[in-house]
Amino acid sequence: MYGWTGKILRVDLTTGQCHREQIPVDLLHAYLGGRGLGVRLMRDRFRLDPMDPEMPLIFAVGPLCGTSSPTAARMACVSRSPLTGTIYDCSAGGRFAWRMKGCGLDAIFITGKSKEPVYLSVYGDLASLCPAGELWGKGIKETVLLLQGKGSVAAVGPAGENGVLFANIMMGEGNSIGRGGLGAVMGGKGLKAITVNGTAPVAISAPERFNEARNDVMRLFRASPVIFGELGIAEYGTPALVDLMAQRRMAPTNNFQSTYFADSGNYSGPAIRKEFHAKKDGCYGCPIQCKKSTPDHEPLPEYETVNHFGALNGISDLHSIVRANSLCNELGMDTISAAATLSAFGEERGRFPAVEEVPGLLYDIAFRRAEGLLLSLGSRKFAEQRHRPELSMTVKSLELPAYDPRGAYGMALAYATSNRGGCHLRAYPISHEILRKPVPTDRFSFSGKARIIKIAEDVNAAVDSLVACKFAFFGATLEEYGELLSAVTGVEYGPEVLKTIGERIYLTERFYNCENGFSLADDQLPGRFFTEPGTSGDGIDVPPIDRERFEEELQKYYRIRGLNEDGTFADPSFLERQP
Amino acid sequence: MYGWTGKILRVDLTTGQCHREQIPVDLLHAYLGGRGLGVRLMRDRFRLDPMDPEMPLIFAVGPLCGTSSPTAARMACVSRSPLTGTIYDCSAGGRFAWRMKGCGLDAIFITGKSKEPVYLSVYGDLASLCPAGELWGKGIKETVLLLQGKGSVAAVGPAGENGVLFANIMMGEGNSIGRGGLGAVMGGKGLKAITVNGTAPVAISAPERFNEARNDVMRLFRASPVIFGELGIAEYGTPALVDLMAQRRMAPTNNFQSTYFADSGNYSGPAIRKEFHAKKDGCYGCPIQCKKSTPDHEPLPEYETVNHFGALNGISDLHSIVRANSLCNELGMDTISAAATLSAFGEERGRFPAVEEVPGLLYDIAFRRAEGLLLSLGSRKFAEQRHRPELSMTVKSLELPAYDPRGAYGMALAYATSNRGGCHLRAYPISHEILRKPVPTDRFSFSGKARIIKIAEDVNAAVDSLVACKFAFFGATLEEYGELLSAVTGVEYGPEVLKTIGERIYLTERFYNCENGFSLADDQLPGRFFTEPGTSGDGIDVPPIDRERFEEELQKYYRIRGLNEDGTFADPSFLERQP
Repeated sequence: MYGWTGKILRVDLTTGQCHREQIPVDLLHAYLGGRGLGVRLMRDRFRLDPMDPEMPLIFAVGPLCGTSSPTAARMACVSRSPLTGTIYDCSAGGRFAWRMKGCGLDAIFITGKSKEPVYLSVYGDLASLCPAGELWGKGIKETVLLLQGKGSVAAVGPAGENGVLFANIMMGEGNSIGRGGLGAVMGGKGLKAITVNGTAPVAISAPERFNEARNDVMRLFRASPVIFGELGIAEYGTPALVDLMAQRRMAPTNNFQSTYFADSGNYSGPAIRKEFHAKKDGCYGCPIQCKKSTPDHEPLPEYETVNHFGALNGISDLHSIVRANSLCNELGMDTISAAATLSAFGEERGRFPAVEEVPGLLYDIAFRRAEGLLLSLGSRKFAEQRHRPELSMTVKSLELPAYDPRGAYGMALAYATSNRGGCHLRAYPISHEILRKPVPTDRFSFSGKARIIKIAEDVNAAVDSLVACKFAFFGATLEEYGELLSAVTGVEYGPEVLKTIGERIYLTERFYNCENGFSLADDQLPGRFFTEPGTSGDGIDVPPIDRERFEEELQKYYRIRGLNEDGTFADPSFLERQP
Repeated sequence: MYGWTGKILRVDLTTGQCHREQIPVDLLHAYLGGRGLGVRLMRDRFRLDPMDPEMPLIFAVGPLCGTSSPTAARMACVSRSPLTGTIYDCSAGGRFAWRMKGCGLDAIFITGKSKEPVYLSVYGDLASLCPAGELWGKGIKETVLLLQGKGSVAAVGPAGENGVLFANIMMGEGNSIGRGGLGAVMGGKGLKAITVNGTAPVAISAPERFNEARNDVMRLFRASPVIFGELGIAEYGTPALVDLMAQRRMAPTNNFQSTYFADSGNYSGPAIRKEFHAKKDGCYGCPIQCKKSTPDHEPLPEYETVNHFGALNGISDLHSIVRANSLCNELGMDTISAAATLSAFGEERGRFPAVEEVPGLLYDIAFRRAEGLLLSLGSRKFAEQRHRPELSMTVKSLELPAYDPRGAYGMALAYATSNRGGCHLRAYPISHEILRKPVPTDRFSFSGKARIIKIAEDVNAAVDSLVACKFAFFGATLEEYGELLSAVTGVEYGPEVLKTIGERIYLTERFYNCENGFSLADDQLPGRFFTEPGTSGDGIDVPPIDRERFEEELQKYYRIRGLNEDGTFADPSFLERQP
């Protein structure tokens, strides 16, 4: 078999047992790897509390990992989110995936709960659980430094140990498994870290075909202004978007009270580069190197982070924003949710946090004390407790990122339908609505968006299962990645087959959520977007979203997906018919 | 009694007892407070190992503390240094001194060793030892945040807990009790932190006289270009010196292999201000506000720190330097010694540390592991262990700061005679040799320097006992501070009386050291300064120092001090004759 190792490492933290098993080949063919494989392996664990010891925490790589497929040094982490209650996956880069595949593994499947803190060490064929009492309580940098001799590291910080609902799992190279709080799941299991160290090579079925496909991808990357253009992400990273979103009047500001922040230029891509001598950084072997870091490898913040610690909290000072980003990384928690929760807290008390307060509040959240005890549950629980539920700018309890939906109606629909909550990574209509790729659409219209979002969700589910990076698709398409996959595995995968696989994965996730009680009532946006306008100006008018048109388009989406009017499954046996 | 409270708090960590005692008034009159009082209280503890539980750790404020005397919110911490083996005091600002005096205390005298980690809480009249198990292992920021409700904080970080020989005690406001490793003494006692919270007012004997003296001081401050000039320390902090030292070709570079670093402009005062939006910060009530920090109160580095993490290690990148400074603060260790020890390490292995290595090495030092285990003992023990003793650029094992003595011969003598090791705070001839205050002297000549250094050492001993800040004396003199002291206490202190007190303190310290085996053999400079030239250029010639002239001036200094030719005391009963 090419592309897959066919092996899963099962780890039971309660008994301390680790053993390898074979994965049925038809599952690999039908779900590829990464997100798809992880979601498939979750199928028999409905209605389990995310913090239940038997809740699995799954790390899965894909068939492209270990090859020189561009942007493929990635993996997915899958479980159920303690923040959203949905099934949850997150894609992460770095070197971990590559080294995990080098241990001969497609997946690591962790259940149980350890009495004492442990870390999992996988060194080639050997897997063992080691005492981590001395690591417990330590920040991420220190933990990674102490473990780095053992290979690539994934670890939780104090936030994960203490059960912050938006705690991350941080990768040793600075990447993160972010958003839905899988760090709390890992910390709750008493698992401080995982190290992987393997170098087994990955063979390719058709090397010449692979090289041709790879050349096609690289040519498309080079031709893409979004990737390698003068103002593209290779040059400035995602903060390249700061000026663009300001011009479009869709930069969420003061907890989404407005959509324009006059000082956003302080943290634009060029401003960050100048101020921090930013250099390119990125995942293993990736040609784009979109990450930016300082000369001593301190990661610099992404677009969502600068906007949310900046505009969303009314903070102008770049250094304070960068420090907040570093502190979240060090404590191991999600920057978007942390900043958005602080912003809701700010609106509730009538004063957004001053720069001097932010570090203390972040510590309080990570250690779950004082104000932080409530804030660590995320903005939705915070706002409900304060009897101001309207202040939580979330979908399915997940804090929205930095694209105001009043400035991009596709994004409004994408937030609502996302089956892991309000994120920009299930479908990214910004691509066509703002970046005009592959074709421009009218950002102030819902027309045609239901179908576009459905397709994008399916495509991304496939991409997350290869696993490749979504940024690759600002240049390449499933056509070229299908070629890469076919060449690697010797199994034919055209773009339509990949979309079908993506749809299978997406519906499996939705089915899981529906079984846990999710429905139309959860596919909603915060009320503010329908009642308050954004910030108009510079010839751009940003009115509130028309709720009727939104709901109409949502119904159209359900029809395209084959769902009932209330968003549930018409066919309760859907899952049984899948491989 | 005005000016003094007359009370000392004695804390025995072994038994857990705290009680207050009266301090004899004649001791207060003869030693003032701060350094002088602390040194006097050390007098009966000769030949005790610094890490012996019975070694006292003394915090002492002075008679000006609590009044509006400019720069007087300071105190001294006194013990024996585990790095140098000498008696050791360090002056520190912030708010701690003010709040400690507000608890009605002139001094806190701590002995013993606690079985479990504790912190000392002083709240008005009440003093208690509280469990600190949850604070142990935590960095400084986190510790301060957890304790800040209890008042001003002084705490040790991981470096102090683990016994790094140059561990600091860090003040909650960002100031530090630095250099000689008193953090290791405190950590060795199991004492994580001290909090003080008192507001008792300090009465002034002659308020009108006090106001006049205060006005005189303020007028002299305003007239001083070094303090309030366009390029002065109020404007840029001590990094104002970067360009000056570069122009003078006396910026220690590559472990003192040269004295000029082409990239030093990257971390000059103006460069730091621009890059970090530096704002003024400083000790409680101080009109100078020489500290610089970012808008969210992250302290920015001092001159010595930027030079030593910069030029001394061949590092050009400002952000890496600032991060190293922040990391040392967080781990609780001295920046000068940390950077200089890394520099010696760099010269020994033939490659100065790359910016990427620095954070890891600093962690390794603070946690005393890997390379850091040896480096945590300071550059002298490191260099001796590697059989390259000449690479340690120290006097009495204390790493030299950022004034190359080949460019200022008074500094050469000051380093050699300093009774706490190679520092710039016993005498600061840079004042006249470079800043031309109060009068210029020839920096490439030893002529007259012995007497100047002796007087400066005595003056500074008095200043450290008032306690006032040395920066005040770029403007004012002992004349005005004597007036302030007389007005506060109702006891007449002219400048000559203060110098006599300073001499008493200085000789008490030297006596203590001689009793512990120090002599001429320890009043020496590293050989490099006598055999290798500095970096000439720009019309400035920086030859090696003439060893004969140095030794001649050292003998002259001994004669002026009334010491034997080998630096020991002619009169073994000196101490008995002192109050």
